[in-house]
Amino acid sequence: MKSQKRIADYGIHIGCMKRGVLNAITDVAGVRVGHCTLDDGNIKTGVTVVIPHEGNMFQEKLFAACHVINGFGKSVGLIQIEELGTLETPIILTNTLSTGTATEALVRYMLKENLDIGKETGTVNPVVCECNDGFLNDIRGLHIREAHVLKALANAGTEFEEGSVGAGCGMSCYELKGGIGTASRLVEIENLTFTIGVLVLSNFGEKGDFVVDGRKVGKSIVSLEQPQEDQGSIIVVIATDIPMTERQLKRLCRRSSVGITRTGTYIGNGSGEIAIAFTTANRFAHYEKAPVCSIGIFNENHINIAFRAVVEATEEAVLNSMICAETTKGRDGNARHSLKEYASFLYTLIQISKSGSPEDL
Amino acid sequence: MKSQKRIADYGIHIGCMKRGVLNAITDVAGVRVGHCTLDDGNIKTGVTVVIPHEGNMFQEKLFAACHVINGFGKSVGLIQIEELGTLETPIILTNTLSTGTATEALVRYMLKENLDIGKETGTVNPVVCECNDGFLNDIRGLHIREAHVLKALANAGTEFEEGSVGAGCGMSCYELKGGIGTASRLVEIENLTFTIGVLVLSNFGEKGDFVVDGRKVGKSIVSLEQPQEDQGSIIVVIATDIPMTERQLKRLCRRSSVGITRTGTYIGNGSGEIAIAFTTANRFAHYEKAPVCSIGIFNENHINIAFRAVVEATEEAVLNSMICAETTKGRDGNARHSLKEYASFLYTLIQISKSGSPEDL
Amino acid sequence: MKSQKRIADYGIHIGCMKRGVLNAITDVAGVRVGHCTLDDGNIKTGVTVVIPHEGNMFQEKLFAACHVINGFGKSVGLIQIEELGTLETPIILTNTLSTGTATEALVRYMLKENLDIGKETGTVNPVVCECNDGFLNDIRGLHIREAHVLKALANAGTEFEEGSVGAGCGMSCYELKGGIGTASRLVEIENLTFTIGVLVLSNFGEKGDFVVDGRKVGKSIVSLEQPQEDQGSIIVVIATDIPMTERQLKRLCRRSSVGITRTGTYIGNGSGEIAIAFTTANRFAHYEKAPVCSIGIFNENHINIAFRAVVEATEEAVLNSMICAETTKGRDGNARHSLKEYASFLYTLIQISKSGSPEDL
Amino acid sequence: MKSQKRIADYGIHIGCMKRGVLNAITDVAGVRVGHCTLDDGNIKTGVTVVIPHEGNMFQEKLFAACHVINGFGKSVGLIQIEELGTLETPIILTNTLSTGTATEALVRYMLKENLDIGKETGTVNPVVCECNDGFLNDIRGLHIREAHVLKALANAGTEFEEGSVGAGCGMSCYELKGGIGTASRLVEIENLTFTIGVLVLSNFGEKGDFVVDGRKVGKSIVSLEQPQEDQGSIIVVIATDIPMTERQLKRLCRRSSVGITRTGTYIGNGSGEIAIAFTTANRFAHYEKAPVCSIGIFNENHINIAFRAVVEATEEAVLNSMICAETTKGRDGNARHSLKEYASFLYTLIQISKSGSPEDL
Repeated sequence: MKSQKRIADYGIHIGCMKRGVLNAITDVAGVRVGHCTLDDGNIKTGVTVVIPHEGNMFQEKLFAACHVINGFGKSVGLIQIEELGTLETPIILTNTLSTGTATEALVRYMLKENLDIGKETGTVNPVVCECNDGFLNDIRGLHIREAHVLKALANAGTEFEEGSVGAGCGMSCYELKGGIGTASRLVEIENLTFTIGVLVLSNFGEKGDFVVDGRKVGKSIVSLEQPQEDQGSIIVVIATDIPMTERQLKRLCRRSSVGITRTGTYIGNGSGEIAIAFTTANRFAHYEKAPVCSIGIFNENHINIAFRAVVEATEEAVLNSMICAETTKGRDGNARHSLKEYASFLYTLIQISKSGSPEDL
Repeated sequence: MKSQKRIADYGIHIGCMKRGVLNAITDVAGVRVGHCTLDDGNIKTGVTVVIPHEGNMFQEKLFAACHVINGFGKSVGLIQIEELGTLETPIILTNTLSTGTATEALVRYMLKENLDIGKETGTVNPVVCECNDGFLNDIRGLHIREAHVLKALANAGTEFEEGSVGAGCGMSCYELKGGIGTASRLVEIENLTFTIGVLVLSNFGEKGDFVVDGRKVGKSIVSLEQPQEDQGSIIVVIATDIPMTERQLKRLCRRSSVGITRTGTYIGNGSGEIAIAFTTANRFAHYEKAPVCSIGIFNENHINIAFRAVVEATEEAVLNSMICAETTKGRDGNARHSLKEYASFLYTLIQISKSGSPEDL
Repeated sequence: MKSQKRIADYGIHIGCMKRGVLNAITDVAGVRVGHCTLDDGNIKTGVTVVIPHEGNMFQEKLFAACHVINGFGKSVGLIQIEELGTLETPIILTNTLSTGTATEALVRYMLKENLDIGKETGTVNPVVCECNDGFLNDIRGLHIREAHVLKALANAGTEFEEGSVGAGCGMSCYELKGGIGTASRLVEIENLTFTIGVLVLSNFGEKGDFVVDGRKVGKSIVSLEQPQEDQGSIIVVIATDIPMTERQLKRLCRRSSVGITRTGTYIGNGSGEIAIAFTTANRFAHYEKAPVCSIGIFNENHINIAFRAVVEATEEAVLNSMICAETTKGRDGNARHSLKEYASFLYTLIQISKSGSPEDL
Repeated sequence: MKSQKRIADYGIHIGCMKRGVLNAITDVAGVRVGHCTLDDGNIKTGVTVVIPHEGNMFQEKLFAACHVINGFGKSVGLIQIEELGTLETPIILTNTLSTGTATEALVRYMLKENLDIGKETGTVNPVVCECNDGFLNDIRGLHIREAHVLKALANAGTEFEEGSVGAGCGMSCYELKGGIGTASRLVEIENLTFTIGVLVLSNFGEKGDFVVDGRKVGKSIVSLEQPQEDQGSIIVVIATDIPMTERQLKRLCRRSSVGITRTGTYIGNGSGEIAIAFTTANRFAHYEKAPVCSIGIFNENHINIAFRAVVEATEEAVLNSMICAETTKGRDGNARHSLKEYASFLYTLIQISKSGSPEDL
């Protein structure tokens, strides 16, 4: 993935399951991710898009679900996912006050791609999720414009950057620098291998609570100057090729909170924590004619392994979002240090893990 | 159906869709209904069971969903239906204070049928729903015992009585006599014919609000002596052979409230209004081995016809529960008149419908 | 109210409760409503705003709740209302594809009014609801711009027009012309009098299902030429001065569906049916310092009268939205007739009601 | 607390907040807990009750909320808590197949205490929660009878045992012995001190996932013989004297899942994870006459400290439920070791914590 040093590259291995080739949400075939970053003085913001498959999303909807872990958030489009169990647009991530702009941009994009929307057929349900980057970014400036959304869509590919990029440009996590992170896990059942990929936009947590792979490192990290801004949030996008129903996808969404809390947070009041999951295996054609269709449903007796995959991938994605991010100085001199600056600390952590950890007693 | 005069036999035809042969929930192949009635002086209560298919319900679970229209109720087993989307026992209906007894009875029944429960495999999720028959019944006496539940299960068949029978023995509806009612509708799509059947246990409503087929008859019905007891509830069981996912079944459940409110109620505070829906078309084997199974999903583009079927069948089932019921004198001299006593009134209603109704203007 | 002839002016009186002075949502003290209408050839759309109180909504939040009756809709801001139980902006109503634009406009309006948002404090939760006016309106044109939202906000007052105005300009209801409607009811308990006001944006229903005050008039109304467009929705805004908690307000929201269905609909698949309720009696200051505050809670033992008020006001508001609307010819020659054109029919309906109705038997 | 050695007595201190005097749910004034234990050969089960206040619970209801973390469970009474926001009985905990019996017993207890129930007034909503103790207990035997529930109610006091007692007698946690555990935290705001107490019935988790205070000890604990029984569950009861609304109490419930997952679990498929919270500060009289009452609401701006308290107390309660439990041999020779047997391991863990932990780098 774009030659960044990720958490595993520091010798910290989250969980016990196998990773996909890229260790990214794009290990799920057809999924692409694109960024547009606005990084200029007080402006530290951007757009990240997840494109679920390579066809026309409106014509070929995917089965999807969402879950609100904590609802202090302004995400757009979840009501219809909940009712109909389908996703019919790319997912846009951006800053909180720009959801309106991004919604209009995504609507225009969908209208252009689909001349029937709003004319021969109904409307379209744009999905836009957000976190508040106002600590580093001049969020009041509403700097995101339609062109930035289109650029992120145009940029989408299977390899992409993590950290202070796209929607992650101005985000904070545990009062360090947060942003975009990803990871994946393979789900092997009998002779079948499925993939679960996770992408997060991280922007939550109090520094003192930060945990890396079970170690409470937060309290050891030297104090930064800024006071805690309790407006954190996290968006989790889960992709899989396991055939699942909406109910099962919703159960996956709920496990993402376990991955999040493994990094230490207690899910604060001000957090807009939202998970969206989709499967590329079950589709629904907009103009479907057949009265009854056949879809795959995952055997619930095996679902624990999928749950574990979501938990591990979410935890690792949060850590990747931090370790790949750069120390950033933004709006009004506010700054966030990168977790990278604590590399020597992490090194020691690894040594302990290898030689004297409780696990080896 | 057991030679009772039902609402359609009075010339009142609810809705516009075709009915099944029995105009009953048992028009859905495999569904059976059984009653056990306790009618002795102050004791006016009973048990009604819906058995969803003829096999072993625990071994062959059905896809199911539930919906709480108003939650002033004590129904048992809905949490697991919501999480797993399956029904694994018959559905028991009884009075509010007897849900514990009925739960234990159903557990014993399931244990006897399945020697693996609680030993080689997990536990079982008994589903027991209730309304409060305390106006007519000595509900404090807890007269329902295990034997009554077993008797209702043993009695189950495709033809069954409506009105003051089984769990409906002591129920009131619009301050008249309520109880068990049923109806069905055919869902015809292209060359396929499906069935939706509804069974209700009716026990809700204020007399003045009562509506028959759009006519506000409540205010015309002469006052009965008893004061209004605002503890009403209704349980709606929806069966279908349309292949649906849990999400779709839940959408059906939510339409039952339209059918209920067409009879005039505004859904009072004290109402435990619960709907449960299952399909006989999608099953899940308890010991399923395959990682992925295939299930049918109904084309959402056609779902409006299924919604309409639920609404019509629910409205008619409520009216059947009333018109089939007998005037009943119960606990402490409390009494409920049957809607039948207003037959001449209903006759006039029909004449108006035929000759001078707004529909014909 | 702006000298329009409303449903009661035709002699059709919905329900039995007393109305407020204006019979409008603005009978709740402090509530104002404003419109901006775009009516020009193919452009039939607009914006309607409900301003809940006369102060700074962000600084003095109101207790609020919402409920999704059917989630085929794109409304914005409900997640946070659900989590925090507060409303902190005016409510904007517009067409489905313009929610993004309206969200950005409302954000800019709030930023201007509150220099602390996104800087010294967190972000703001804009609430924007929508229906699809694409049958009459060139909805693909995205004609709503920021200025229209600001104009509607500036226009807000206690007396306002109903029908084909504001967001209602291009809406359809039962394949007739729909739009904005309102009504109110007084809730009298002991020596106290409270008010419940409802405003709807109506855009739902199949013509054959239309019911006026219990009469199934839909089938009698002569056929219009256009095929049914099943993309209907309805937004219901409920205001009250009864002190209620978020849970109680949510219960009010759920009763609005009873009022809606009394006009005949079965709640179709394509309907985005959303209710939002707020009370002007319980407020929460953004910078509240006290650890514990005191709020009023309505005695649940009396709540049935409030439920009935919501049902009656919602039913009447839908009828007002139709009877006040003008026959409209819009996009590509599509047209909707006004219910007014059936005035003679309604007159006959009244005569029947007065002389030979079932109620008088 | 009954002279048992609890997790803090081993030098393991969870979190950073102050504890109450007893470090138990009974630190909340008025709350009492009682057990009845059935421990005889294959019978390893029991009943635990939480009595929320010392008055008549039906006459003086408490504000309450519940949350289903994972719904593979059979708890009784949650629907009405959700709708009405009140708790009107003690909370009974027992094994999964005995919820029916316990419900009937609790109903009989409430009927005896309240002669108006089911006669002059409506019914009562019994709250019974459960976990599956079938690995150690002959759960098919349905050994819990009414007398055991009554005995647990009679035994209730402020000091009580933890571990393999009451409903916890036969429970397993992380494939070690689980059961009843408790802890409390003080919430200090300005000059006010409130208490949050938690009681858990623990019965979940796979051994390899077990974490103590951030250390992944599960993998180090020597393998036991039994295969993993994935039928785990946990019930969390949260008591507080902070005045809160039902919505706020529900937010507390949702934080209990953070405390649970801090002990390592990923929330398995088979888990019935339920949280119930009540406040002793807001009450509602059954025969309340006043149209409007006043209740306290906690300032949401301060709620993070309450969230943290729930997380810490839940985590510690789970650990107490394990460390206080005894190694138990039950049904068919199945056995669970106590965490106590790993005391030397825990000792080493402490030493590492004190001298060479990451926190001190």
